[in-house]
Amino acid sequence: MSGRLIGVGVGPGDPELMTLKAARTLASADVVAYFAKEGHRGNARTIVSAHLRNGVTELPLLYPVTTEIPKDCSRYRDAIRDFFDASAAAVAAHLDQDRSVAVISEGDPMFYGSYMHLHARLAHRYPTEIVAGVTGMAGCWSMAGAPIAQGDDIFVVLPGTLPEDELGRRLGEADAAVVMKLGRNLPKVRRALAQAGLLERAIYVERGTMANAVMMRLADKTDDRAPYFAVVLVPGWAPKWGPEQEPTP
Amino acid sequence: MSGRLIGVGVGPGDPELMTLKAARTLASADVVAYFAKEGHRGNARTIVSAHLRNGVTELPLLYPVTTEIPKDCSRYRDAIRDFFDASAAAVAAHLDQDRSVAVISEGDPMFYGSYMHLHARLAHRYPTEIVAGVTGMAGCWSMAGAPIAQGDDIFVVLPGTLPEDELGRRLGEADAAVVMKLGRNLPKVRRALAQAGLLERAIYVERGTMANAVMMRLADKTDDRAPYFAVVLVPGWAPKWGPEQEPTP
Repeated sequence: MSGRLIGVGVGPGDPELMTLKAARTLASADVVAYFAKEGHRGNARTIVSAHLRNGVTELPLLYPVTTEIPKDCSRYRDAIRDFFDASAAAVAAHLDQDRSVAVISEGDPMFYGSYMHLHARLAHRYPTEIVAGVTGMAGCWSMAGAPIAQGDDIFVVLPGTLPEDELGRRLGEADAAVVMKLGRNLPKVRRALAQAGLLERAIYVERGTMANAVMMRLADKTDDRAPYFAVVLVPGWAPKWGPEQEPTP
Repeated sequence: MSGRLIGVGVGPGDPELMTLKAARTLASADVVAYFAKEGHRGNARTIVSAHLRNGVTELPLLYPVTTEIPKDCSRYRDAIRDFFDASAAAVAAHLDQDRSVAVISEGDPMFYGSYMHLHARLAHRYPTEIVAGVTGMAGCWSMAGAPIAQGDDIFVVLPGTLPEDELGRRLGEADAAVVMKLGRNLPKVRRALAQAGLLERAIYVERGTMANAVMMRLADKTDDRAPYFAVVLVPGWAPKWGPEQEPTP
């Protein structure tokens, strides 16, 4: 007999934005596993602090490399692949002992979450369940009070790593967008938004729904410093949401 | 003094996928408002049944028209606009009496939710808060165990109402996609997926996470009957998630 693998979304940051099912799962799981950087606790682990069972076994999975090696370097890819293999083996060792393992994920496990690297290696071998979570970006647009998409809107999520022209073209072709992975890409993202005529509409958010969240119109942000996980929202509805700007329903 | 407007996401269907914050908000709100079709209770109201406070005031907001009048007809637009105006007035009457009004929304209030039509009319006039929710599509891809997007993936949400060629082109340009509003658009969506070479990867889901959910590979669906709110998922990772298909992280 083998234990159950559970990918648990714990929401965007505010611990109250965890689901009832996530809280119940954490109260009963034998092992709680999470990805984090060496020397850090990680957002997912911080979010669930008040919900961990006394005496639960914790399994931190600590990234060996972060930004020191270029991402297109094969040495980076090999190191990350070996790390995910070893992480899956560590989780499997518990599952083989019939222990349930909840892998907690900031946001939703299947939406840009590291959990998927375990899922790809383990879901075909063990009973597996996913507990959906509120995504980080939903936390951001809710905190901003920004209606993001409606009706027949085309909504797109774009990484800030795209070339400027492609970013601009894709922004121009969508009704609503979120640009992720800002960091040093922010000046380029600004230019792409301007190219698409969307700079005035863009909202900049860091750590949405967390205690130290930052939010402002991107046009009002006077510097180009941004953490990697900051996002820019381009709501489908204009930022001043009087009925006069409302699109036809 | 005036009451507080709260747009509350109640998740995709499974009542346990409601957030802790949504449950707490429902336990304290004076009024719970929701959109529904005439003669129906609506999904949002069904989801929260076990969480309504005894004696809470309910405010159903019942759509006057659905599919009888073509959507591009000005009579439809006028009727819907008048209905949202009247709904906002009904909510405002409670807010003016210093009552808090929780408007419950299936999924997330700001992501293709009807709540936005109240937000547009009221948020600049009353203290307003949004409680983010798990989206319907996150419920679908979690239930399907389908890793939807990862790393630098471009993710897009497309309405099935788009012309076939445009659907096919946009599907082909994205790494991962969700196609909404299927209904009678399903045969066209199939052809667009085939044009983009994505038919084999597509997953069809009705009522994700609800008790009567339906899920299958779209290629295995032998008829073209689909409710309007069914979706097609096109995961960025292949449907058989062995490590051999895993993209470089």
